[in-house]
Amino acid sequence: MAGKYICMDIGGTKILGTIVDENNNIIFRAKKKTKANKGLEVVEQRMAKVVEELLEQSQIPKEEIVAIGAGAPGVINEDTGEIIYSPNLPWKNYNIKKAIEDKLGIPFFVGNDANIGMMGEWKYGAAVNKKNVVGIFVGTGIGGGLIVNDSLFSGSKYLAGELGHMVLNPEGPYCNCGQRGCLETYAAKVSMTREIKNQINRGRDSILKDLMDMESSVIRSKPLKTAIDQKDALAVEVLDKAIYYLAAGTGSLINIFNPDMVVLGGGVIESLGDYIMPILNRYIRRFAFPDIIEGTEIVESALGDDSIIYGALALAKEKQG
Amino acid sequence: MAGKYICMDIGGTKILGTIVDENNNIIFRAKKKTKANKGLEVVEQRMAKVVEELLEQSQIPKEEIVAIGAGAPGVINEDTGEIIYSPNLPWKNYNIKKAIEDKLGIPFFVGNDANIGMMGEWKYGAAVNKKNVVGIFVGTGIGGGLIVNDSLFSGSKYLAGELGHMVLNPEGPYCNCGQRGCLETYAAKVSMTREIKNQINRGRDSILKDLMDMESSVIRSKPLKTAIDQKDALAVEVLDKAIYYLAAGTGSLINIFNPDMVVLGGGVIESLGDYIMPILNRYIRRFAFPDIIEGTEIVESALGDDSIIYGALALAKEKQG
Repeated sequence: MAGKYICMDIGGTKILGTIVDENNNIIFRAKKKTKANKGLEVVEQRMAKVVEELLEQSQIPKEEIVAIGAGAPGVINEDTGEIIYSPNLPWKNYNIKKAIEDKLGIPFFVGNDANIGMMGEWKYGAAVNKKNVVGIFVGTGIGGGLIVNDSLFSGSKYLAGELGHMVLNPEGPYCNCGQRGCLETYAAKVSMTREIKNQINRGRDSILKDLMDMESSVIRSKPLKTAIDQKDALAVEVLDKAIYYLAAGTGSLINIFNPDMVVLGGGVIESLGDYIMPILNRYIRRFAFPDIIEGTEIVESALGDDSIIYGALALAKEKQG
Repeated sequence: MAGKYICMDIGGTKILGTIVDENNNIIFRAKKKTKANKGLEVVEQRMAKVVEELLEQSQIPKEEIVAIGAGAPGVINEDTGEIIYSPNLPWKNYNIKKAIEDKLGIPFFVGNDANIGMMGEWKYGAAVNKKNVVGIFVGTGIGGGLIVNDSLFSGSKYLAGELGHMVLNPEGPYCNCGQRGCLETYAAKVSMTREIKNQINRGRDSILKDLMDMESSVIRSKPLKTAIDQKDALAVEVLDKAIYYLAAGTGSLINIFNPDMVVLGGGVIESLGDYIMPILNRYIRRFAFPDIIEGTEIVESALGDDSIIYGALALAKEKQG
């Protein structure tokens, strides 16, 4: 339905809210801490506060908002609005749709953040009109989304697309999820940070020693980019290994799905895409059939940080339409 | 359409033909060597000979055959009947549908053998009425098929489902396909045979030394089963490693697809399923999320060697219907 929408990206640490106008432009933004550790009611209040702030800032009357769309981490039934389970938010078997609609009086729709990000790229970003698409989002961890036969595929129980937890080595390092050798244990920021800190603690020289917060378990993308720009040997080496494994995972997915397109997004690609993509494109030829690769476009996310916002817009328009 | 069908399983070494009656029973069978090395025309003649033999044997007039369905190795456009490429048969960008229809005057439909095997299990076997299914067929190599949202998924260019060529270790052994560490290099008969022969050649004791053909690059399933039944240490060890990697691949696919069901079939499962399945079910818990596994049935093929025959029936009925 045409009109203005509120679109939200609900993360474990912060909630980003936006107002998107009739021309699909983001015209207002507001951000608040999630305060997930304070429990369910506080998070709902924080969400409500973001909405209030957006309405106040914009002076748009609530009645002009067609619906709110949102992406959040976890296993989410997009049809009913039930959050079945979330790793970072205090919700379990909880109907957040009903709770927010009761609180705010605006229709509310929510889906898994990586799936919703994929939907954003598919409806408004890099993958418009593609029939089969694999989306891989590389940040602190690795999330994924799948478009199959012209629709978002969420599997039999809204659990599909856990692409960060494909096994890339059954005898590899343990992942936070309890499995061994997941893609995420090789190619996400947490694993890169572990490797960088281990090497520096062993006396390896690197400009990252001064650039990064050595207490943090997740390096920010900016110092990593600075180190790569300056050809820091440790940064180049660690990123190279991550790209090699990312190529192996991506290649596998290409052999499994034979998609039209693979979209790579997330903070790491956002900051370092120009550096990563050519290397990934070389490595990937080792891990997928030449015939399949030939017909597969491998591209960077077009919406960057806003892919979840635009996916939330697509979800809300689809459900409220 | 109701009526009798001829259903064929076209392999690199032999062609199996059957007549399937109105009640979906296989009432006649005929088998001939493919003679793939003699070229395209000879293979077509062999296919025609199988059909003739079936008609002669059964005394069923050609006019009573509604259509012929077939599964064959390779990249096949199920809609047009074009074989785009086949690793084991002398066809490339060749419309086999047209050729056979011209020769025999019976409608002919063909698809990729692993996909067609999956379709057989889905329409007549273990996965009837399941919405999302992953099929993994373990034999000389490993093939796969996917049912997604209630239909066979063959990807953007009929290349999807190459599940044997998921990468399970980007630094692992080279596969025949040129990639490294494919599932097939760990869990198929070719890799098991290589490991068994290497160990025996190094002086390892095993009853397989007498049971198997040490000149062959592919062990038959029967001696492997005999060795396992007799608790031969080498056979147990080699199969255990294969099952571990098969579990890792299956677990990854469960995390990617969140299917209702995984069907395992092919010669190895056919012979050794009773031994393999309980071990696989234990190992798989290391490689997929508990929540996803909980809702996923992991079962053996119900049709065994006839899954391709029944899939060919399903294809012919669908296309001629």
